[in-house]
Amino acid sequence: MNLSRPYLRQVLERRGYTFTFSTLASSVTWKRGGVSMVQGASRGIGLEFVRQLLEKNDKGYIVATCRNPSGATGLLKLKNEFPERLDIHPLDLTVESTMEDSANSIRDKYGSLNLLINASGVLSIPNVLHPETTLSKVQRSSLLLAYDINAVGPILVIKHMWPLLKAGGGSGTDKDFAIVANLSARVGSIGDNALGGWHSYRASKTALNQLTKSVSVEFARKKDPIICILLHPGTVDTDLSQPFQRNVPKDKLFTKEFSVQKLLSIMNNTKRSDNGKFFAWDGQEIPW
Amino acid sequence: MNLSRPYLRQVLERRGYTFTFSTLASSVTWKRGGVSMVQGASRGIGLEFVRQLLEKNDKGYIVATCRNPSGATGLLKLKNEFPERLDIHPLDLTVESTMEDSANSIRDKYGSLNLLINASGVLSIPNVLHPETTLSKVQRSSLLLAYDINAVGPILVIKHMWPLLKAGGGSGTDKDFAIVANLSARVGSIGDNALGGWHSYRASKTALNQLTKSVSVEFARKKDPIICILLHPGTVDTDLSQPFQRNVPKDKLFTKEFSVQKLLSIMNNTKRSDNGKFFAWDGQEIPW
Repeated sequence: MNLSRPYLRQVLERRGYTFTFSTLASSVTWKRGGVSMVQGASRGIGLEFVRQLLEKNDKGYIVATCRNPSGATGLLKLKNEFPERLDIHPLDLTVESTMEDSANSIRDKYGSLNLLINASGVLSIPNVLHPETTLSKVQRSSLLLAYDINAVGPILVIKHMWPLLKAGGGSGTDKDFAIVANLSARVGSIGDNALGGWHSYRASKTALNQLTKSVSVEFARKKDPIICILLHPGTVDTDLSQPFQRNVPKDKLFTKEFSVQKLLSIMNNTKRSDNGKFFAWDGQEIPW
Repeated sequence: MNLSRPYLRQVLERRGYTFTFSTLASSVTWKRGGVSMVQGASRGIGLEFVRQLLEKNDKGYIVATCRNPSGATGLLKLKNEFPERLDIHPLDLTVESTMEDSANSIRDKYGSLNLLINASGVLSIPNVLHPETTLSKVQRSSLLLAYDINAVGPILVIKHMWPLLKAGGGSGTDKDFAIVANLSARVGSIGDNALGGWHSYRASKTALNQLTKSVSVEFARKKDPIICILLHPGTVDTDLSQPFQRNVPKDKLFTKEFSVQKLLSIMNNTKRSDNGKFFAWDGQEIPW
């Protein structure tokens, strides 16, 4: 439904939304089914989130972001199938202006966001980043790179989407709050760390957990209609885990379809009291 | 006591020490009282560690490191008082070659280390780094800078001192293991994070906790005679806490002398089973 501008302004102002000329100049429309953003959507779990969100929620709109949309063949295929309900934005986790651009586009087209999934993550890059098997292989450059992509980037995306999530809350969905879901990993748990190794990846996910917790505390204190959760997808058969699947028992290696189905079901069942918590794919809480 | 070279070689080899020409060329001497390294020793808690170690352990040798020794007036004063038992090395946490240089100097002079205290830490730098009061003030540069100094640097120092700590174990002390003590902070605890804010500092200390845990697991698995612990010094009256002391109750703001006394007592009472644990100044364990 299209709403008249004065009424819309009233609604948005009640939600604490700050107006700029460009917001009002464009035709903001509330979309039933909600607006979701999947950051890190070119492949793997992120791409599967986009696919399932498009297929399961036939009134929902999806903004999928990745560094290089023109090379994201999986996303482009989905765009052909769902031209009206899928937007693809370029977003580089190390360049804040690309997050601003994406936030501006979403604001102009939809006015709000109901769900933000930070699905990106880096574990290894041939000749650049290798999961460390021992302290003696730990390098400054690897530690900083993993931190930049796995912890810093997702938090900056939340920073830029915050006003849109606040404006969105649960509008167009069956909840009264928006959801931020950050993909973490069980190896980011300190309490659960019995094996050591993978220093750069582990520490970046642990830091992501702490940053997400801090953000969840601030949202709650400000009574913003947003909750933040952390999710461990299990070991999923993707490019990320591919070099490390050898030692994973067959029944512990999930398909993308299965893992994303489980994670979406956690999001669907999320309560306000889950704000700031860390869940595995099966809904079990993971210790910090 | 000076030991003859063949006997020394035998002793060192039993301890798993790898020989290089330069090690034997210099006069390696076992020092009773042990050899301790304090990284980040120019001021604050680090400098106080150096002072108390020199005063309390009159047979111990101390290597104090900081970025710019010529400007470290407190250290230079101690060097005047204890010229024989204090060495000052330049060490920059962002430049691994300075850690290598320091490790080489220690190896040539002492052959081993019994205690490594990573005391450095950055919370704020005027016009560069400010503890964030809200997500909207979080910057990529601040997150990366705090991570580099508070998490990456200390772990790389352990990496370079590892062979010396392994060679040292508890020799010259009343323990049968060497100790690595990393200064963390209670705000690095995710479970304890009820206030949010200070994103860059918090996340860097949380990551340091995870990295230290990983290192402690590897040392234990390899049966190296080294344990790693994390310490929260309390809120201590130093340059680091100075801009944030306003809201600290008077009885909760410790002197450097008091805090370091408490932390040294924890180290003195450390058992092998404490490996990988996180203690507050009063000996209480802090949740992750």
